[in-house]
Amino acid sequence: MAAARIGVYGLGTMGAALALNMAEKGVAVAVANRSPGPLEAFVARAEPFAARITACGSLAELIAALPAPRLLLAMIPSTAPMDAFLDEVMPLLERGDTVIDAGNADFHATRARAARLEAAGLQFVGLGVSGGEEGARHGPSMMFGGSEASWQALEPILSRIAAPYEGAPCVDRMGPDGAGHFVKTVHNGIEYADMQMIAEVYDLLRHGAGQSPAEIAAQFGRWSKGPLESYLFEITATVLAAEDSHGAGPVVDAILDRAGQKGTGRWTVIEAVRLGQSATLIEGAVAARAWSAEGDLRAAAGAAFGTERDALQLDMNALEAALLAARVLEYAQGFRILAAASAEYAWDLEAARIAEIWRAGCIIRARLLDDIAGAFRDGAPEGQLLLAPRFAPVLAAGIPALRALVAQAVAAGYPLPVLGAALAFWDTLRQPRGTAALIQAQRDFFGRHGFDRVDGQDARHGPWWD
Amino acid sequence: MAAARIGVYGLGTMGAALALNMAEKGVAVAVANRSPGPLEAFVARAEPFAARITACGSLAELIAALPAPRLLLAMIPSTAPMDAFLDEVMPLLERGDTVIDAGNADFHATRARAARLEAAGLQFVGLGVSGGEEGARHGPSMMFGGSEASWQALEPILSRIAAPYEGAPCVDRMGPDGAGHFVKTVHNGIEYADMQMIAEVYDLLRHGAGQSPAEIAAQFGRWSKGPLESYLFEITATVLAAEDSHGAGPVVDAILDRAGQKGTGRWTVIEAVRLGQSATLIEGAVAARAWSAEGDLRAAAGAAFGTERDALQLDMNALEAALLAARVLEYAQGFRILAAASAEYAWDLEAARIAEIWRAGCIIRARLLDDIAGAFRDGAPEGQLLLAPRFAPVLAAGIPALRALVAQAVAAGYPLPVLGAALAFWDTLRQPRGTAALIQAQRDFFGRHGFDRVDGQDARHGPWWD
Repeated sequence: MAAARIGVYGLGTMGAALALNMAEKGVAVAVANRSPGPLEAFVARAEPFAARITACGSLAELIAALPAPRLLLAMIPSTAPMDAFLDEVMPLLERGDTVIDAGNADFHATRARAARLEAAGLQFVGLGVSGGEEGARHGPSMMFGGSEASWQALEPILSRIAAPYEGAPCVDRMGPDGAGHFVKTVHNGIEYADMQMIAEVYDLLRHGAGQSPAEIAAQFGRWSKGPLESYLFEITATVLAAEDSHGAGPVVDAILDRAGQKGTGRWTVIEAVRLGQSATLIEGAVAARAWSAEGDLRAAAGAAFGTERDALQLDMNALEAALLAARVLEYAQGFRILAAASAEYAWDLEAARIAEIWRAGCIIRARLLDDIAGAFRDGAPEGQLLLAPRFAPVLAAGIPALRALVAQAVAAGYPLPVLGAALAFWDTLRQPRGTAALIQAQRDFFGRHGFDRVDGQDARHGPWWD
Repeated sequence: MAAARIGVYGLGTMGAALALNMAEKGVAVAVANRSPGPLEAFVARAEPFAARITACGSLAELIAALPAPRLLLAMIPSTAPMDAFLDEVMPLLERGDTVIDAGNADFHATRARAARLEAAGLQFVGLGVSGGEEGARHGPSMMFGGSEASWQALEPILSRIAAPYEGAPCVDRMGPDGAGHFVKTVHNGIEYADMQMIAEVYDLLRHGAGQSPAEIAAQFGRWSKGPLESYLFEITATVLAAEDSHGAGPVVDAILDRAGQKGTGRWTVIEAVRLGQSATLIEGAVAARAWSAEGDLRAAAGAAFGTERDALQLDMNALEAALLAARVLEYAQGFRILAAASAEYAWDLEAARIAEIWRAGCIIRARLLDDIAGAFRDGAPEGQLLLAPRFAPVLAAGIPALRALVAQAVAAGYPLPVLGAALAFWDTLRQPRGTAALIQAQRDFFGRHGFDRVDGQDARHGPWWD
């Protein structure tokens, strides 16, 4: 049996998939799990790669199976269980060992944990892993946050298991401490907005244009072969085409209308607002999920005010152009958050690299990301993606289509929390002079807050204070 | 000279106004300030009430001038300076003394400070004060957070200086520790949304209907005499009618288009998202202020993509109905946040009382608040204001007007981050079945997250996992 190069602790869905990926790609791995059941299940599944698997019955055994300096990847909830795990494992480790948190962590927690381990002579890596179980098993996109030294130690392993895009592995070091988990958080926020945008279009096609789930599936399938090509469009085609195994017709009609959320969407919105970068498209998606849980309120409101909506005439080419423009705006907001966080935390995030490692393996992988990477390589400032020359024709064609779509849908009674937010963002940004002067006048009136003048003169208050 | 009943530390705009208010209303007050200038200025202004003012040259002198148990109100920034102040003052205080923070504090900080002082045998009150300088001077609305004992001690003073509404003072105990500052935070969030809504209508009237600031001022003046009657509409009429003292024409045209924000709007959005209650109208306003600071980006976008917008045909009665409906939706979101926080922090907030004490003195005072208070008194559940019977005709008339307005404005190129969010909120809530089932299907597909079924059966995964 080959000596293990890395340990994986926590053999749930994602931990097991990552460990199998490593073993299959030739990385000898030692594994352990708190309870014995998942370990046994893993050993059975890992039989083809048994020569590169060391199954350990305890954490201490796992540590002992690793050569120093150790690489120990934990795939357990990145909340209190992670802190409890650190309490348990730190006394067992030696100076120079590295613990990797590969879950979805609040990057503030990752920063605190990195500081804690550094103080003890250890290293802590926050590793964002995207791609779901399938990605983890066969090639995820990974966003590394940690020291340059720990990157040097881990890079050969991570590059081997990552998804390749035209041969290059979709993994890179984003920056120190929480940088990887933060980039993963924003990735998930974009994922939320993408999914809600799809849901909004589904609503319009289903209830406005009267298409069946199968027809809509076929439409998403067609879009998946063009500029909107993306994993989320592909799987939308698949899930909308699927029939319920209990005979309820399309499976989407058998599912309760209540969306779950685990935190990364909310964290993106919260951090964006903290950084002065409102992520209104992502907030629209977070809100839609939150409101989906209000079944009683929605039933009562529908009964009281009626659920009627008008039919829609939708042009599929215009819809495609509108969606592509909205997706550009979504990424523009996402990369503005990343740029702001990079400045705030001195991370030196590289926007082009982020777009590049999102091109394969992760949930938001999309043809558009190659163009985004190119735009940044061509010198687009990180906060100004929507001004990149290569997106000018996309926006010139797509914004009028988006505008017509939102106007028609709003008039007919359909909610578009994300597509509507995209247009409001756009229409705000394209006005060199908006309406904030009135707000400044009001604030000065009631709070004596003062204001700056257009002409640069020094009159800081309105005549009401004369 | 009368013995002081309360001390005020910090004689900036708001602290001086509160102290003068106390003295004028017959409450003997001792005052101090870190630097001597504001104290001298205050003493000069307070000359008419000199018999009830004790000016103290230092914090120690201020403490010595107060009878135990002491009431000491601090009006200093509720951030690091407040903690430094507590470090300084706590050794000077005795068991049972109360420190009142009357600034805009993050309620999490207030909770921590309350715990800190309680551990030292002292009391800490977080007092939300709204109404700007004018309100503080002549009658603010106040939201008290602290122990029942400290409320008993302070109530006679606060009731005397608060704004009266039909004779009853606009002040009450919201709950313990951070409850008062939290209610004040949400008050300010609603204020943000109200101000942005006004700015959006201003934009439509000015640039869509071609009205002058003076004409728009007259329109807001007319609206201020009807169901939209409110302080913010009144002052909008005043500030839009004002001429620049430097001869630049309407003062609003002389002001730089960049809105400031101090934190309460952002805190409201962040806490709403944390509580699973997206405050999308408030977020629209926070975003608009944030984007107003992006002057370079807006100039470049306008140059690249054009700033053209179509003319609008606006009916003033329809606009009034639309604004009233949007304001109901804005308060519905605000009271949902309050209800969620009340449950989360076990505060037992009383929605009707909150609406009642917002009816006078504060920045968001409005005729509508009397109806909101009535709706809660009539038994509307706190999270379901928009289902209250008395708002049914307001919404039945206003939603179609809001829908037509948003559709027309969006088609013509005007951004409506708040009014558009209001309609998206409404159109989501009135659908008993939305589109979250598709999102659940996607999540199950890529993350094996599982879903609940409409029919309650136990198939937790789609056929893609068979």
